[in-house]
Amino acid sequence: MEPEYRNRKPKEVRRLIREGVIQSPTTGMCGGYAQGNLVILPEEMAWDFLLFCQRNQKACPLLEVSDAGSRSFSLTAEESDIPRDIPRYRVYEYGECTGEYTDVSDLFEDYQRTRGKLVSFLIGCSFSFETALLEAGIPVRQIEERVNVPMFHTNIPCTPAGVFSGNLVVSMRPIPHHQVSSAVAITASMPKVHGGPVHIGYPEVLGIKDINKPDFGDPVTIHDGEVPVFWPCGVTPQAVVMNSRPPFVITHAPGHMFITDLKNAELKD
Amino acid sequence: MEPEYRNRKPKEVRRLIREGVIQSPTTGMCGGYAQGNLVILPEEMAWDFLLFCQRNQKACPLLEVSDAGSRSFSLTAEESDIPRDIPRYRVYEYGECTGEYTDVSDLFEDYQRTRGKLVSFLIGCSFSFETALLEAGIPVRQIEERVNVPMFHTNIPCTPAGVFSGNLVVSMRPIPHHQVSSAVAITASMPKVHGGPVHIGYPEVLGIKDINKPDFGDPVTIHDGEVPVFWPCGVTPQAVVMNSRPPFVITHAPGHMFITDLKNAELKD
Repeated sequence: MEPEYRNRKPKEVRRLIREGVIQSPTTGMCGGYAQGNLVILPEEMAWDFLLFCQRNQKACPLLEVSDAGSRSFSLTAEESDIPRDIPRYRVYEYGECTGEYTDVSDLFEDYQRTRGKLVSFLIGCSFSFETALLEAGIPVRQIEERVNVPMFHTNIPCTPAGVFSGNLVVSMRPIPHHQVSSAVAITASMPKVHGGPVHIGYPEVLGIKDINKPDFGDPVTIHDGEVPVFWPCGVTPQAVVMNSRPPFVITHAPGHMFITDLKNAELKD
Repeated sequence: MEPEYRNRKPKEVRRLIREGVIQSPTTGMCGGYAQGNLVILPEEMAWDFLLFCQRNQKACPLLEVSDAGSRSFSLTAEESDIPRDIPRYRVYEYGECTGEYTDVSDLFEDYQRTRGKLVSFLIGCSFSFETALLEAGIPVRQIEERVNVPMFHTNIPCTPAGVFSGNLVVSMRPIPHHQVSSAVAITASMPKVHGGPVHIGYPEVLGIKDINKPDFGDPVTIHDGEVPVFWPCGVTPQAVVMNSRPPFVITHAPGHMFITDLKNAELKD
């Protein structure tokens, strides 16, 4: 069965999300268009976070950064409304999740009226390169097995910036030996959605103790003749933000991404 | 004759610059290593400028951004001292050049003591891709003719950010017809030093009236069978900064760049 909303335009799907018609994860929606991770932070922390993203571009490839106080990603998503265009948000205060919401307009506006401006960061997501892998006939195991991609903490420190620091989080996909080189070439050509792998083959080098026990997401089958390949993961910036226990943060809920008007193919340039 | 300091290491050349032994333009020094454009701004303008660079990555590819108040590019240049490691600086106040200096330590420290913190931006430079073009047997005319690359204002607006706005400035290199495709492929593979051309062949499309009268730099010969090819130019961020007439800015003087420890070949990743 063709996934729902696969052939709809992003602007239309964002409207359906805003109207509450779509409340599900966005995986597979708007085929060919890039989806992104969302982090909304108080303006006082925005400089440090933008600097952190600049210094850790593979983990935090920025698709767009809003003007302070703006509700729109006007460069990548026409007529977008950030606090309403994602099906499910999470709000964190001092590092604790204080709720999940399908619309954060009121929270967003209340914060700006009483506490200060917010800045929204849109960070590239591996959905884009997974499409490219599938098109090249390279299997993406967690899609086959209908689970979340396995993700692991590593021993690789990110370059710190201001209040933000922490280690790289990676996602793992098992790739057949003869397709590893293609998988590297394809993903390395898409630097705005994490780029090439950080490591191929030896989980222990990254400090990963058990490949079947991911820190986030689900375990997946590694068949004979397959190699575990590790990519920088968009969970890194979220983990780093939480480390610093900021007074107020809004993010997307896992799997519920912001759908942009950017074609995946545009991310090569 | 082999150019002077071509085979020296960046750290050694930065030391010689700091000691006043080298006072000349850095063209050709430390072969294989990336050189960068410098912009030092007051902290109050740094957010807008970092956002401008994020939104205009082809014109403003960041190699490193310092912590506010820091004198060092610690990630790309070991033991560097930004106010002394460039042979010649320019200082601008409210958009007017108020002086050229071989050492701006005192100005830098005076500013920080009395007016506030400074932030230093290191922006990729086309010297890196010119080496790659030459290695592929593609001529670089302004090097052959020992002049500055011709640069032009265009009608292409940059995406504004806060106080910063302005049009793209491009550099032009005439490329033989049969090598244009190679020149595009080589430069497109190096996004941190401007990436591929913005335009090939028709200066009038960019609003350029006379290809022999550049707005900056010098005219170069276009031979029969050659096409003018236009790349985003690192003069763009400087022009945009000057447009906003900031109270205090330090930049490198033309041709006198900051030499990093980064290999040009590393800029592909």
